[in-house]
Amino acid sequence: MSEPIKKPLSVLQKAVHKQVSIRLKNDHEYKGKMMNIDQYMNVILTNAEEYNNNSLSANYGKLVIRGNNVLFIKIESDL
Amino acid sequence: MSEPIKKPLSVLQKAVHKQVSIRLKNDHEYKGKMMNIDQYMNVILTNAEEYNNNSLSANYGKLVIRGNNVLFIKIESDL
Amino acid sequence: MSEPIKKPLSVLQKAVHKQVSIRLKNDHEYKGKMMNIDQYMNVILTNAEEYNNNSLSANYGKLVIRGNNVLFIKIESDL
Amino acid sequence: MSEPIKKPLSVLQKAVHKQVSIRLKNDHEYKGKMMNIDQYMNVILTNAEEYNNNSLSANYGKLVIRGNNVLFIKIESDL
Amino acid sequence: MSEPIKKPLSVLQKAVHKQVSIRLKNDHEYKGKMMNIDQYMNVILTNAEEYNNNSLSANYGKLVIRGNNVLFIKIESDL
Amino acid sequence: MSEPIKKPLSVLQKAVHKQVSIRLKNDHEYKGKMMNIDQYMNVILTNAEEYNNNSLSANYGKLVIRGNNVLFIKIESDL
Amino acid sequence: MSEPIKKPLSVLQKAVHKQVSIRLKNDHEYKGKMMNIDQYMNVILTNAEEYNNNSLSANYGKLVIRGNNVLFIKIESDL
Repeated sequence: MSEPIKKPLSVLQKAVHKQVSIRLKNDHEYKGKMMNIDQYMNVILTNAEEYNNNSLSANYGKLVIRGNNVLFIKIESDL
Repeated sequence: MSEPIKKPLSVLQKAVHKQVSIRLKNDHEYKGKMMNIDQYMNVILTNAEEYNNNSLSANYGKLVIRGNNVLFIKIESDL
Repeated sequence: MSEPIKKPLSVLQKAVHKQVSIRLKNDHEYKGKMMNIDQYMNVILTNAEEYNNNSLSANYGKLVIRGNNVLFIKIESDL
Repeated sequence: MSEPIKKPLSVLQKAVHKQVSIRLKNDHEYKGKMMNIDQYMNVILTNAEEYNNNSLSANYGKLVIRGNNVLFIKIESDL
Repeated sequence: MSEPIKKPLSVLQKAVHKQVSIRLKNDHEYKGKMMNIDQYMNVILTNAEEYNNNSLSANYGKLVIRGNNVLFIKIESDL
Repeated sequence: MSEPIKKPLSVLQKAVHKQVSIRLKNDHEYKGKMMNIDQYMNVILTNAEEYNNNSLSANYGKLVIRGNNVLFIKIESDL
Repeated sequence: MSEPIKKPLSVLQKAVHKQVSIRLKNDHEYKGKMMNIDQYMNVILTNAEEYNNNSLSANYGKLVIRGNNVLFIKIESDL
């Protein structure tokens, strides 16, 4: 069971360099290109856009999001 | 006691590829096909629908939900 | 001291297949038959009923509740 | 230093079968006979009474309280 | 560095049997004689008094406070 | 997979001595020169400025921010 | 990488016996002489002053602050 049980993190690893949308616990959403992600769901995002209630609220060059704030990660292009 | 004590995670593993409904701590609900789940209850959901107070609020292709946000997982089709 | 110090989880293990009522931190209550439970208090509940302020708010077939949300578990039939 | 540093949990162990009053983080209080307790402060309580703002709000046969919700435990009869 | 880096817990150990005042995260304050404390800051307090906004709200014989609720511990008599 | 899976923390390590902007969970933002960072995202910031709703609210010489409060770190100059 | 990655805690260790200002998650601030600090950021403070919205609200002789409540520590005199 140890191999399939790791899958969600593997799916995220395979999504590196793809466009993602990350919803945080505070309900803000960050969209950008996911440059990398680790096992805590710490994420590097480039060309990041911050959305608040679906409206763009800020632009960032390069963000490192701390994984414990993540609610979910939406992978824009299917694997 | 070590074998039966692991059962809830085994039940979730057996529900892979089934339709589930996931309630988060923020009271949002996500319905979709559970493609996989790990021991932290990190979940991959495809054709995900977001419900807010029982009304559909968004559609997502593929979501990875971080397990620590999960309140409960309802397995739509019994095992 | 190691043997008696594990008792609360043993009591829960012995209550498997009994009727329980589970209060969560968000004050919702879930009643049903406890099919299994692990050391994190992750619980499988069947024929689950959700109560909100003591009134029935929903019915579920099979639920897996994530243990970290549990406030307490009431065992309906004494051991 | 390792022996005395474990004392609070030892005191709780010695209070097994005594009458206790357990205040939770949500300010509810549970009084009853403490049948057992483990190192996480998971507690089994029998003949449990729930108090809300010092007034009795419910009676329970046997409760298992998850330790991480505990604010403090008052031991009614001194050791 | 390992020896001095443990000092705050050692200072608390040396304050056993002294009068302390413990502020919790919920802003309540508990004053009493600290009978013991462990590495999680679980504390045994005797002749405990509860203060709410600096006014006495309750008296307790013997309390065991769960350490994760502690904001700070004030040692009344200097070491 | 162990090497690429560590990347977000490596990116932060490489940003030492760069100008960063750190958003905390309480929505305050701290800008300054990041003198160092560890694996918990504990950060040393010099010439730190505190921003509240995008307006400067305080100046600090040298701050050590505890990592568990971090929402994200924006690296001002790209790597 | 293991040596520089520990720096924030080393900087705090070197600041022992200096004047510090500690902001907690509940927005209270504590100023005093930092007598010691451990790896959890548990801190011993002497001649401690409590500030609320920048106004002095209380004086304490000796405080031990539990590290998990710390937002940041400002070192008053640069290293």
